[in-house]
Amino acid sequence: MSVTIEGIGASNGIAIAKAFRLESPELLVEKKSVSDPDAEILRLTEAIESAKRELQKIKAHTEQQMGKDKAAIFDAHLLVLNDPELINPIKEKIKHERVNAEYALEDVARMVVNMFEQMDNEYMRERAADIRDVTQRVLAHLLGVTIPNPSLISEEVIIVAHDLTPSDTAQLNRRFVKGFTTDIGGRTSHSAIMARSLEIPAVVGTKIVTEKIESGTTIIVDGNEGKVIVNPTPEELHSYEQKRQDYLKQKATWSKLINDPTLSADGHQVELAANIGTPNDLASVLDNGAEGIGLYRTEFLYMGRDQLPSEEEQFEAYKQVLEKMKDKPVVVRTLDIGGDKELPYLDLPQELNPFLGFRAIRLCLDQQDLFRTQLRALLRASIYGNLKIMFPMIATLEEYRQARAILEEEKQKLVEAGVQVADSIEVGIMVEVPSTAVLADRFATEVDFFSIGTNDLIQYTLAADRMNERVSYLYQPFHPALLRLIRNVIQAAHHEGKWVGMCGEMAGDPVAIPILLGLGLDEFSMSATSILPARHQIKHLSKAQAESVVEELLNMDTAEEVVNFVKKNFPIS
Amino acid sequence: MSVTIEGIGASNGIAIAKAFRLESPELLVEKKSVSDPDAEILRLTEAIESAKRELQKIKAHTEQQMGKDKAAIFDAHLLVLNDPELINPIKEKIKHERVNAEYALEDVARMVVNMFEQMDNEYMRERAADIRDVTQRVLAHLLGVTIPNPSLISEEVIIVAHDLTPSDTAQLNRRFVKGFTTDIGGRTSHSAIMARSLEIPAVVGTKIVTEKIESGTTIIVDGNEGKVIVNPTPEELHSYEQKRQDYLKQKATWSKLINDPTLSADGHQVELAANIGTPNDLASVLDNGAEGIGLYRTEFLYMGRDQLPSEEEQFEAYKQVLEKMKDKPVVVRTLDIGGDKELPYLDLPQELNPFLGFRAIRLCLDQQDLFRTQLRALLRASIYGNLKIMFPMIATLEEYRQARAILEEEKQKLVEAGVQVADSIEVGIMVEVPSTAVLADRFATEVDFFSIGTNDLIQYTLAADRMNERVSYLYQPFHPALLRLIRNVIQAAHHEGKWVGMCGEMAGDPVAIPILLGLGLDEFSMSATSILPARHQIKHLSKAQAESVVEELLNMDTAEEVVNFVKKNFPIS
Repeated sequence: MSVTIEGIGASNGIAIAKAFRLESPELLVEKKSVSDPDAEILRLTEAIESAKRELQKIKAHTEQQMGKDKAAIFDAHLLVLNDPELINPIKEKIKHERVNAEYALEDVARMVVNMFEQMDNEYMRERAADIRDVTQRVLAHLLGVTIPNPSLISEEVIIVAHDLTPSDTAQLNRRFVKGFTTDIGGRTSHSAIMARSLEIPAVVGTKIVTEKIESGTTIIVDGNEGKVIVNPTPEELHSYEQKRQDYLKQKATWSKLINDPTLSADGHQVELAANIGTPNDLASVLDNGAEGIGLYRTEFLYMGRDQLPSEEEQFEAYKQVLEKMKDKPVVVRTLDIGGDKELPYLDLPQELNPFLGFRAIRLCLDQQDLFRTQLRALLRASIYGNLKIMFPMIATLEEYRQARAILEEEKQKLVEAGVQVADSIEVGIMVEVPSTAVLADRFATEVDFFSIGTNDLIQYTLAADRMNERVSYLYQPFHPALLRLIRNVIQAAHHEGKWVGMCGEMAGDPVAIPILLGLGLDEFSMSATSILPARHQIKHLSKAQAESVVEELLNMDTAEEVVNFVKKNFPIS
Repeated sequence: MSVTIEGIGASNGIAIAKAFRLESPELLVEKKSVSDPDAEILRLTEAIESAKRELQKIKAHTEQQMGKDKAAIFDAHLLVLNDPELINPIKEKIKHERVNAEYALEDVARMVVNMFEQMDNEYMRERAADIRDVTQRVLAHLLGVTIPNPSLISEEVIIVAHDLTPSDTAQLNRRFVKGFTTDIGGRTSHSAIMARSLEIPAVVGTKIVTEKIESGTTIIVDGNEGKVIVNPTPEELHSYEQKRQDYLKQKATWSKLINDPTLSADGHQVELAANIGTPNDLASVLDNGAEGIGLYRTEFLYMGRDQLPSEEEQFEAYKQVLEKMKDKPVVVRTLDIGGDKELPYLDLPQELNPFLGFRAIRLCLDQQDLFRTQLRALLRASIYGNLKIMFPMIATLEEYRQARAILEEEKQKLVEAGVQVADSIEVGIMVEVPSTAVLADRFATEVDFFSIGTNDLIQYTLAADRMNERVSYLYQPFHPALLRLIRNVIQAAHHEGKWVGMCGEMAGDPVAIPILLGLGLDEFSMSATSILPARHQIKHLSKAQAESVVEELLNMDTAEEVVNFVKKNFPIS
C-alpha cells in the first residue's frame, strides 16, 4: 500500500529511489557539578581540537569530491571553533558555575543560536544553523558519540532525516543523493536553500517522514507538489517516472535559452538579471544565463564579523564581481543594514519597529565614515566592469541628493589623488518606500535609474510585516494599489528616458511576469535559478497583449481578482 | 541680570509671577533582609491604608476646589492601591525573598511602570505615571516622609519642579497657579497634556530650571516659544506683559467664534470636529465649539482593566457621548488595539514590528466575538444621536466588505429581536494604510465616508516610526507624496459624492489647514483646544486662492519647499 505524505516543496524536480535514513544520534546532556573545573576546561579544549581535525578531514574529502565552493562552509565552522566570543563564555561558565563541559557548551550555544535565530533574516538563520551544527559536533566528541557522514553514501538514494545540518548538506553528492525529505523546515530553512542551489528535489516540513519511512523503502519525492510517496504502486511509479522525464525535458528546453536575449513573442526585449549576496553566487548566475546583476546585496560583507570590512576587502569583492561579469551591468546596492539586519559592532539601539527604523541610507547618511569607505571601494572597483550604484530605502529627495553629493565628493577626491575611476557610473535608487513610488516623477528627473524593491514596498504599502505570520496574508504583490504604484514608477522613469528594474521576489514570479511586461518593466532581477524559466515564459508572451490588459487589472478591486484574471489569460506553459 | 532658559513649549500662553519650587522629597530605598516577613507585610498594608486615607482627603479637597472631573484621577489611584495584580507580587516578594517592604514595593513598581512605559502610547504612559505616583506615595508613608500638597498654594505663583506627578497636576488650582516649568518631560508627557487641558502656560524639558530658580524669584513662562526668563529686566517684563495681553486678546477673539459655522473668507463651509478618548472629554469639546466628534477612540474602554468591557458598559459609554452631542455627528472608530496598544487579557504574541502587525481591524476580523460585541453596543446606542461607524487600518476591500457584512448581520439580528436601531448609520473607513489611499476610487464606491488618519498614513508612506527619535525627521506631513495621496482620497470620494474627514494631528496644524482647504477636505477633526484657532484661521482664508496654489505644492520636490511656500503665502494672523 502506498502512502502519500504532504510537505513543503522546497526544491523543484522529482526523485525516485530507495530511502536512506540519516540518523543523527541524540545528544543527551545532564547538568553535573564538577570538583575540578580546570580538568573540565581541558576536556572541552580536547573535544574542540578533535572536532577541528574531523572538520579538516571532511573538508578535504568534500573539496575533492565536490569542489572548493561546497567545502567553504567547513572553513566557516572552523572559524566558529576559533571564536573567543563563543568559546570563552563556555569556559567561564565551567569555571564560575563549576559545571560539566557538556552542559556549559550546550547552554551557551543555545543562547547564541537563539540570538541569531531571532534576527529573522536568512543570513542570520544560516549562521544560527552553522553554530548549532558545529557545537553539536563538539558535544558529540565530548560524549564519545559518532556523527554520521553523508559523504560516504555511494549508491543512489533519497535521504530521509529529521533535519539536515549545514555540514550534512555540504557533503551531499548529487551523483548519489537524488533528493531528500525532512520532518522540519520551511521554504527558507537552510536545507531548502541548499537543495535549490544543488538543484536536487526536496520536500521539507513533513513532520513525519522519519516516523513513516525505513531505510531501503522505495520512495518518490515530488518537489514540485510538495509530496512524498512511500511504497509507490506500479502505476504511481510509472506516472511519476513520466513526470520526472517531463520535468527534465522542460529543464533541457530552458537550458537552451542560456545565451539567448530575452525577447517576447512580439519582439520586445527586456533584461533578466540575478540577485546575489556574495561573489560565491556568481557561478550559478553565469550558469543560468543572467544578463547582469540587478542587485548585489553588500550586507553580507559586513555580517558575521566583529568589525567593519576595510576599504581594501570591499574593493576586492566588488572588483571580483565586476571582472567576472565582464561588460554586463552590475547594480550594487549600498549598505542596507539596520532593521532586522543588525551588526553587533555598530551598537545600534534596539527599536520598537525596526522595519520602520534607522536603517539603510538613513544609517549611512548618519554614519558617513562607513558610507564613504564603501563608496570609495566601489569607485575604485568601477574600472573593472560595468558598475551601477544604487541607494536603498530612499524616502525623500533630500536623502538622494545628499547621498549623491557624498558620492561625487569621494569621486572628486579620488580623481585628485590620481586614482582611476570609471567616467560615467549610473546612480539610481531602490523604490521601496511608498513616498518615493508616489513622487517618482520628481525623482526621475534626478536619478539615472530605479529598481523597485517589492519585498519592502509591499510591506509598507499594506502596512504588514511579511515576517509576521498573523498578517502575512496582507503581503499581496497583486494588490491593485501596488500595481498602480509600479505603473507610476515606470511611467515616470520612461517619461524622463530612464530605465526601471525590479529586484524583489515578485520579478521572478510567473504570475507577475505578464503584468510587469505589460507595464513596461525594463529589467527583471531574480534568483539565478528563476532566470531560464522566466526567459522561456517571456518568449511565449506578447507584450502588446500584456499591455492591453494591464489597464483593466489596475481598476480591479482586489489582489484575488488580479491573480485569477492573469492565470486565466496568461496560462503558464 | 535676566537669564533665559530654553525648553519645550508644552502649553500656550504667557505667565508672569513669582516662582514656587515644588520639591518632592528624595525617597531612598535600601535593600534589607528581614527576619519576620509577616511583620513587613503588615507595615506595607498599613502604609497602603494611610496612603488611601490621604488620597481620600486630597480627593475631597480637589473636588471642592476644582470640581469632580479633576478629582477623578484620585479614584484611579485608589483603584491602583486595591489592585491585587500590583499588591500581591509585592507581598510575595517580601515573603519569598525575605526583604523589606520598601525594597519590594519599589522593585515591583519599577517593573510594572517600565512595562507600561514601553508601550509607547499616551494612555499607557499616563497609567505608568499614575502607578509611579501612587507607589511613591505609599513609599513615602513607609519611610515616614511627607509628600508636598500643591492644593495648599494660595498665592499667584509659577510652579518650578523637576517633574509634576499626576496627583500634583490634579491639585493645580488655576486661580493661583499661573503656569509651570519642569526639568524633564516632552510635549506628550503627562504634565504637558494636563497643562493644555488646564489651559495654563507651561515649558517642560528645560533640564535645569530647578537648578537655576529659587522660590520667590520673578519668572516669565512663555509657553508659545518654549522659554523661561528668570529675573526679567523691566523692559522684558513690559514686553512680555504686552505679549500676554495680545495672547489673551487673541483668545477672546477666538472664543467669540464658538457658535459660528466654519466659513472661509469666500464662503466655503467646512466642519470642525474634535477627537476624543472618553466621554470625560466632552466638556472641553462643547466649550470649544466643535461641530461634531470626528474620532471617538474606543480603545480606552478596553484598557487599564483585566477583562473585556461588556456590551452594556460599552452601550452606556456610546449612548452618553451620542446624547451629549445631540444631533451633531459622532464618528466612532471600532477597536484599534494591538500595535503599541496592548491588552494584557487578550494575550497577543509579541511582534517584531507591532506597527506593521496584528492590530485594529485585522484583530477584530479574527476575534469576531469581541468585534460583534462592540458593534451591537454601537447599534443599540445609535438611536440616541447621530452615529457614524468607522473601521481602522483597512488595507484591502475584502477587509472592508467583511467588516461591513458582520455589522449588517448584527444589525439584522437586533432588528429581528425587536431592538431599535437607527435607520441609516453611515459606515466609513480610516485611510491610514497607503494601499487604501492609492485605491481610494475603488473604495469610494462602497464606503459612506473616509477619514484620513495622517499619523499612521505618514509613518507607513515614509516607512518611518514616528516614535523612533532616530527617524522622526522622516515623519513629514508636508511630503509632496503625502499631499498627493490626500488629494487622491478627496477626489475619489467627491467623485462618488462621499465626504472626507481627517483625524490625524495634521488636521489642526495651521500650516496644513490652507492646503487641506485647497484640496477640498470636508471635515477637520482635531484636539478640542485647536478648534477655535482653526475656525479663526479659516475665516481669513480664501478657498479659491488655496485651491489655486495646491497644484503647485503637489509638484514640489520636498516637504521643506511646501512648508516655506505655505508660510509665505498664507501667513497665520
